[in-house]
Amino acid sequence: MLFSQALIPTLREVPADAEVISHQLMLRAGMIRKLAAGIYFYLPLAQRVFQKLKTIIREEMNRIGGQELTLPGVQPAELWQESGRWNLYGKELLRFQDRNERHFCLGPTHEEVITDLIRREVKSYRQLPLLLYQIQTKFRDEIRPRFGLMRAREFLMKDAYSFDRDESGAEESYHKMYEAYSRIFERCGLEFKAVEADTGTIGGSFSHEFMVLADSGEDTIVYCPACGYAANQEKAEIKPPENIRQDEKPQPREKVFTPGKRTVEEVTTFLGIPPDKLIKTLIFSTDKGPIAALVRGDHELNEIKLKNYLGCNELSLADDSLVETITHAPRGFAGPVGLNIPIYADNILREAVNMVAGGNEKDVHLKNVTAPRDYQVIEYGDFRQAQANDPCARCGKPLKIRKGIEVGHIFKLGTKYSEALQATFLDQAGKEKPIIMGCYGIGVGRTVAAAIEQHHDKDGIIFPFPLAPYQVLILPVNINDAKIRATAFKIYNELNKSGIEVLLDDRDERPGIKFKDADLIGIPLRVTIGQRTLEEGKVELRFRHSQKVELLEIENITGYLNNHLSQVFLR
Amino acid sequence: MLFSQALIPTLREVPADAEVISHQLMLRAGMIRKLAAGIYFYLPLAQRVFQKLKTIIREEMNRIGGQELTLPGVQPAELWQESGRWNLYGKELLRFQDRNERHFCLGPTHEEVITDLIRREVKSYRQLPLLLYQIQTKFRDEIRPRFGLMRAREFLMKDAYSFDRDESGAEESYHKMYEAYSRIFERCGLEFKAVEADTGTIGGSFSHEFMVLADSGEDTIVYCPACGYAANQEKAEIKPPENIRQDEKPQPREKVFTPGKRTVEEVTTFLGIPPDKLIKTLIFSTDKGPIAALVRGDHELNEIKLKNYLGCNELSLADDSLVETITHAPRGFAGPVGLNIPIYADNILREAVNMVAGGNEKDVHLKNVTAPRDYQVIEYGDFRQAQANDPCARCGKPLKIRKGIEVGHIFKLGTKYSEALQATFLDQAGKEKPIIMGCYGIGVGRTVAAAIEQHHDKDGIIFPFPLAPYQVLILPVNINDAKIRATAFKIYNELNKSGIEVLLDDRDERPGIKFKDADLIGIPLRVTIGQRTLEEGKVELRFRHSQKVELLEIENITGYLNNHLSQVFLR
Repeated sequence: MLFSQALIPTLREVPADAEVISHQLMLRAGMIRKLAAGIYFYLPLAQRVFQKLKTIIREEMNRIGGQELTLPGVQPAELWQESGRWNLYGKELLRFQDRNERHFCLGPTHEEVITDLIRREVKSYRQLPLLLYQIQTKFRDEIRPRFGLMRAREFLMKDAYSFDRDESGAEESYHKMYEAYSRIFERCGLEFKAVEADTGTIGGSFSHEFMVLADSGEDTIVYCPACGYAANQEKAEIKPPENIRQDEKPQPREKVFTPGKRTVEEVTTFLGIPPDKLIKTLIFSTDKGPIAALVRGDHELNEIKLKNYLGCNELSLADDSLVETITHAPRGFAGPVGLNIPIYADNILREAVNMVAGGNEKDVHLKNVTAPRDYQVIEYGDFRQAQANDPCARCGKPLKIRKGIEVGHIFKLGTKYSEALQATFLDQAGKEKPIIMGCYGIGVGRTVAAAIEQHHDKDGIIFPFPLAPYQVLILPVNINDAKIRATAFKIYNELNKSGIEVLLDDRDERPGIKFKDADLIGIPLRVTIGQRTLEEGKVELRFRHSQKVELLEIENITGYLNNHLSQVFLR
Repeated sequence: MLFSQALIPTLREVPADAEVISHQLMLRAGMIRKLAAGIYFYLPLAQRVFQKLKTIIREEMNRIGGQELTLPGVQPAELWQESGRWNLYGKELLRFQDRNERHFCLGPTHEEVITDLIRREVKSYRQLPLLLYQIQTKFRDEIRPRFGLMRAREFLMKDAYSFDRDESGAEESYHKMYEAYSRIFERCGLEFKAVEADTGTIGGSFSHEFMVLADSGEDTIVYCPACGYAANQEKAEIKPPENIRQDEKPQPREKVFTPGKRTVEEVTTFLGIPPDKLIKTLIFSTDKGPIAALVRGDHELNEIKLKNYLGCNELSLADDSLVETITHAPRGFAGPVGLNIPIYADNILREAVNMVAGGNEKDVHLKNVTAPRDYQVIEYGDFRQAQANDPCARCGKPLKIRKGIEVGHIFKLGTKYSEALQATFLDQAGKEKPIIMGCYGIGVGRTVAAAIEQHHDKDGIIFPFPLAPYQVLILPVNINDAKIRATAFKIYNELNKSGIEVLLDDRDERPGIKFKDADLIGIPLRVTIGQRTLEEGKVELRFRHSQKVELLEIENITGYLNNHLSQVFLR
């Protein structure tokens, strides 16, 4: 492709409304443009990157026996009513009526429609298992679309669905998909981790998220370098501490006056104690009534773990009026002593003595609080966020923390949808059974954005080879110099002929602009053709990733690049 | 792929609601299923065919310098208001509000959004020309979706847009696209014609439709075997007749009583005259007032030609009350004699003498009507539908007629959208000018349906090689016979290894069912493995298209197929 004929509208300035680096760079590199909130144009450079990723995804889906299809994007309300999600899904589900006033929605996900297809077409165990996938535009009317392709409203997704006869079959499908996802992100040249994830409201079954590691990630990954355990922080388990009573002897409980001191920091500073001597008491409203949860002052409560432990559907921090009703004090002074609601405490508090806690009275805390002398806990459990150096739940070795971007999610669904929509089959004994399902997603645009978050420098994108829109950029320093121009086109034609994807910057622009754009759009290999080297019959090859530079004879460049690229793609 | 693991739900019976053959066969071959009116699942077999077509389209678009991108599907109302189409488009445009009550529509076509992109990114003549395309799902809320993928509401389309500096550039882009479309349909193995088409309400510029020839087509194509002229019937021009006065001498006009005789057939039968002796008088209501149009009794008026000739925006047959006001008679007795509105007549009536026409009086016709003695025509013109053997407007030789299915449409748009949305550029002299646009579409699903309309027999689909979902079907007559099974898998593995796309019907089904399914899904080559031939070390190769059968040594089959397929694809 000739740059002068390509639609690659690069920008000098960082666009004002782009907060994250991938969003900034995709705008600046002329990959995307915004049409409306969360709705983007994918320009030719992005399209090429998407196409690369889609090809990798297709190859790996087909390798595990996946069959590609296309499910409808416009979906009738009736199916969503059958699954119960028409009411549950909220405003993210974009709804409308057609010209005949029938209700439809724009598919944010496709469990309903594919289950409808399968219940109509599959009758016998002989037709199972099935693994079906599609790569399709979805729409979710996000309340706050942001970060470019990271959280868009209209976005491209690969979604897959497995249908099995029994649990072991479903687990095998899940495992195959796990392996396929691992290969996909590996082939993209991304550093990633597959982590255990919460199954959310679907419940019962299990799930992994595939996280691209990047400091800018919104998700926190907890992992154990010793045994390989890895989980999303919202799910990551911590080994319960050994039950060794602290040496300290319980002291008599006493009231202290803490005027206006509510936060952990305020109270510990005021009292001159370390945060691990404080009990943080949180009051929650749940569908099973209010409860209190205790964690140590230096820890954070994990609401998802607590909610899963309690098995409740709703759990949220109590509002001020509920806090006052329960503690008889304003927010900031709640404590376990004398509290009349069920108390759940994090494991680490089991042996804690002489702690400081809220006094359930305005401007009052209590010192030397010790259970069970001063308060009674219904159950101790693993209710806090894992932190670096917490003991791994599997092997006890210290955990580590990294930031990640969720790019894939695999889910053992079980029979949630097959039971709601009555997708059943006759087993070998002629008995009717619900099909066991799994669902699996990859955010195509988000994977590309995550790749950029992981692979960039101050000058721009550094595309991994497998995702690069072109493999080679030819940069003639001055296109009006006849010899430079002729050499550039000669190499361009040779590379094209060898099947290498090459962009020739034939624009009549200053070299500074061309070099800046080259770094910005991040094509892995740059061949610079300048007067000085040309006089020696040479061109300069620069690796975008390592910034390494080599001078090569003009006659050797095509052979060298062919050789280099075949090695890169042989890995 | 193994048939037993594939989702290819074939049907024995012809589905009740499928009227056209492609719809029936796509349902029966397990290619598509309906989710709602005009909304379909594309199952794996269809997906593979679509993928083949998409690859051909991409290759030909790229060959002429097209750049692929993806435009948003969900589009803000504001852009459509700018172009004026928000009000003009009617109910086919599916409109809705997002969670913030902003108005959007689901893109039925993408002139507005791409013009918005280009007006933001293109400023200078140096950025032009551009040729951009996408392959994307569109939605048109058709009042009567029907014929399966022929007229669906949700459908896959390749749309392309060209942007040029001037008319000659725009014509060059148009010509390139014409050539690319010709290559696409040729490479698909389809018999087609590119025909001149009416530009409809866009006006001014020119346009071609690409028609796949099929007796079941809804469109009528008029073409000249002598000079190559071809047009849609609604556009096809007829050479005006030579002005040779008929020999017949005008006779005195007389009234005849024709009680209740209104239609051409009723009047001519009643009076015992041939239809070419009758003048058919049609009263139209237009935005420029009512007019009368005359054609000979054996001809059909072409409203589009008449409308284009008159240059009016609205033209429709007058209702009964307007007919009565103008002719003072009920519908069926209108005639030109004494009529007080402008009269336009088809060229062929210029020299007609002694004709029969309505008397503008109930149950009365007039005989021996001759212009200009009896009535005055404002203008004679080409106002009728071309029929077989009419003289070609270009060369005068007899025209022919065929039925076709419109699968592609190319359009020189001019500045309609660039002016409405102010997409301008600075030319070399620094002068601001509107960009000259073209738009170009291929219905992907409709092309596949049209291919089936053109290539089938009573047993099922006969896929052209380039579109076939698999090239070879292996049919072991009895999969439980160890030797047959082993041979089937041996050939299957060999063919897979050679890169041939092969489907192995490993189902434990009766041979009759397998043979029927093989014919139905229409894979071009079938390798049958049966006991009798196997004893001689042979398998049977059958060509779906010609039904030709060959017996081949098992060792030779892979080599033979490789050789055959490489010849097919070399063409």
